[in-house]
Amino acid sequence: MNLPAGFTASGVAAGLKPSGSLDVGLLVSDRPASVAAVFTKNRIMAAPVHVAKRTARSGSARAIAVNAGNANACTGMQGMQDAETMQATAAKHLGLRANDVIVASTGIIGVPLDMPKLVGGLEAAAGSLGPSLYTFADAIMTTDTVRKVATTTVEGCTITGVAKGSGMIAPELATMLVFIATDAAVPAPQLRKALKTATGSTFDRISVDGCMSTNDAVIVLANGASGAVSPAMFEVALQQVCNELARAIIEDGEGAGHVIDITVAGARSQRMADECARAVAASVLFRCAVAGGDPNWGRILAALGASGQSIHPDLITVSIGGIIVCENGQRGLGSLEAAAAAMQQRVVPITIDLGLGHASSMLSTNDLTTEYVRINAEYTT
Amino acid sequence: MNLPAGFTASGVAAGLKPSGSLDVGLLVSDRPASVAAVFTKNRIMAAPVHVAKRTARSGSARAIAVNAGNANACTGMQGMQDAETMQATAAKHLGLRANDVIVASTGIIGVPLDMPKLVGGLEAAAGSLGPSLYTFADAIMTTDTVRKVATTTVEGCTITGVAKGSGMIAPELATMLVFIATDAAVPAPQLRKALKTATGSTFDRISVDGCMSTNDAVIVLANGASGAVSPAMFEVALQQVCNELARAIIEDGEGAGHVIDITVAGARSQRMADECARAVAASVLFRCAVAGGDPNWGRILAALGASGQSIHPDLITVSIGGIIVCENGQRGLGSLEAAAAAMQQRVVPITIDLGLGHASSMLSTNDLTTEYVRINAEYTT
Repeated sequence: MNLPAGFTASGVAAGLKPSGSLDVGLLVSDRPASVAAVFTKNRIMAAPVHVAKRTARSGSARAIAVNAGNANACTGMQGMQDAETMQATAAKHLGLRANDVIVASTGIIGVPLDMPKLVGGLEAAAGSLGPSLYTFADAIMTTDTVRKVATTTVEGCTITGVAKGSGMIAPELATMLVFIATDAAVPAPQLRKALKTATGSTFDRISVDGCMSTNDAVIVLANGASGAVSPAMFEVALQQVCNELARAIIEDGEGAGHVIDITVAGARSQRMADECARAVAASVLFRCAVAGGDPNWGRILAALGASGQSIHPDLITVSIGGIIVCENGQRGLGSLEAAAAAMQQRVVPITIDLGLGHASSMLSTNDLTTEYVRINAEYTT
Repeated sequence: MNLPAGFTASGVAAGLKPSGSLDVGLLVSDRPASVAAVFTKNRIMAAPVHVAKRTARSGSARAIAVNAGNANACTGMQGMQDAETMQATAAKHLGLRANDVIVASTGIIGVPLDMPKLVGGLEAAAGSLGPSLYTFADAIMTTDTVRKVATTTVEGCTITGVAKGSGMIAPELATMLVFIATDAAVPAPQLRKALKTATGSTFDRISVDGCMSTNDAVIVLANGASGAVSPAMFEVALQQVCNELARAIIEDGEGAGHVIDITVAGARSQRMADECARAVAASVLFRCAVAGGDPNWGRILAALGASGQSIHPDLITVSIGGIIVCENGQRGLGSLEAAAAAMQQRVVPITIDLGLGHASSMLSTNDLTTEYVRINAEYTT
């Protein structure tokens, strides 16, 4: 997949990943681009997030430099210096100013970056820029099992995004890096608004494991190489790309056998709908039940009851794969065998009607499998 | 183990558990007893919890009737009638009034109780009362792998408790039931105060999987058969029994390889300390790391950062098994190999100093293992 007009990218193996896979990437615009970004809300922010926030605030950037294999998080003053060196080194090899480069890192926490390797990688990456997105996309992968890219066009312009993430994913941020390039001309304030709208309904609506990362970032660069677009159409197109990438992340959830699409309807308020959806998505017992193909609606009700929201047990209806397993808070008329069969599908839709009002919320998560535990028990420091 | 003076108990197999194990129990005082109780805060409360709350409110009771194999939760009006029939049936066979009997159930959710079996079981149980606690203790076990009892004496009086809880009952969720009998004379208001104090520092401080059940109950009966005790001494003794039982529950956590004792110190407020401890205990990523023996302190910091509390990353110190792995928010001087070795112990102490103030909190949880997932996924309806 090629990048939008005016963008090039690369990915190289700098030796930061023990596996020897690609681990340093650059994404570069040949002209100044508007930038918009959203970052993790975790109080423990990695050094590159601090540096990238500063850069993004200017509203303009030329390049993104990223490494996998080391998150440069919980690394103190040394980490801040390393993130700044990363930024300056990328800028030097690209003939840019330091503040033109957005940096991002993902990988192990609490270990200083191997700067000689990273610096070498950035130089090699600057020397191998090309129109394809693929080596860059590969360089940001960690436990991802598939490359995650999405693209769309709007009024002659292209929006192309790449994402990394499969674990430590939670609403309002996800251990997740997303980089989006577009050749549409979009002023920074409008780009920020469009990105905020897009993430609110996409990346903020997925949760692999409820764990919020220290490094999450979603960055959009708009370089205008293909001209202007209508703001409304751009917003829709950006949302579409974000939605595809968010879906790709949840489809690739660590060790997941299923995607669980949770819809909570009939809530008295948006907050109630959101909190109830989150409570069900956060229930490890319910997620285990999905892994086992067990239409255990009691665990859904128990999670709703523990959500802190003023629900009324007797008004709740729950369906699994369209089969009503619980009605008015008790066993519904739908067949549990049919519900169990529906749970064999890759995507398991759970619909919860609280019977109280008209607010609703959707959230996607994964089942909790022995494989998830294995992946995360064996990821060594 | 024998019961305190004036108490008898029994346990019988009524056929509610498919395994044919003991599943109906009675605990009876030969005279009126003060009663105090705490129940689940889940909005989805099982029918027996509604009935037991009503009875406990009177401050006086004579007996506890309990069944395993069926939680009588999410069973609607029928469930309420069944819980009342359970109460009335036990009372009839014990020669008591219905309101003298506290009822409790644990087991599958959303399935009506098999009343003929339960009624038969209650009659049999009433006919086999004796001084030993053991058959009663066995009748309330579900996925528990060990019987959980604790006893102590205070000023010539005895306090004896029995607990059930480790996780789930196919296809139900984790439930904790605790019944405590004492022959001390303790008026109901004082008993309530002592129980509240005791549970706050014991049962409220353990979390196997963060899932709150619909049926949790802790009930104390004090029949005064051995006379009065000093309120302060009684409170300490009750807390000791609760602490032993809480420890037994967490030691028997489903699929657990380790007990994780989390201490958060240096918090600015009690709430901050509590929320931070809970955030770490709720992190599935961190619990997986403990299962893997991986001193992955970055996951502890990530959980603290996502807790919503105003922590300062640069002030945080974390030690694992006494080894300082993180100091001022970055890699500490302690050896990771030594920390990994400490994590091979059955009990893994994690100490977190937030460096902000003087409030502290303790919480115990278990590691998240493939075995936990297997136990909770492998039931199929």
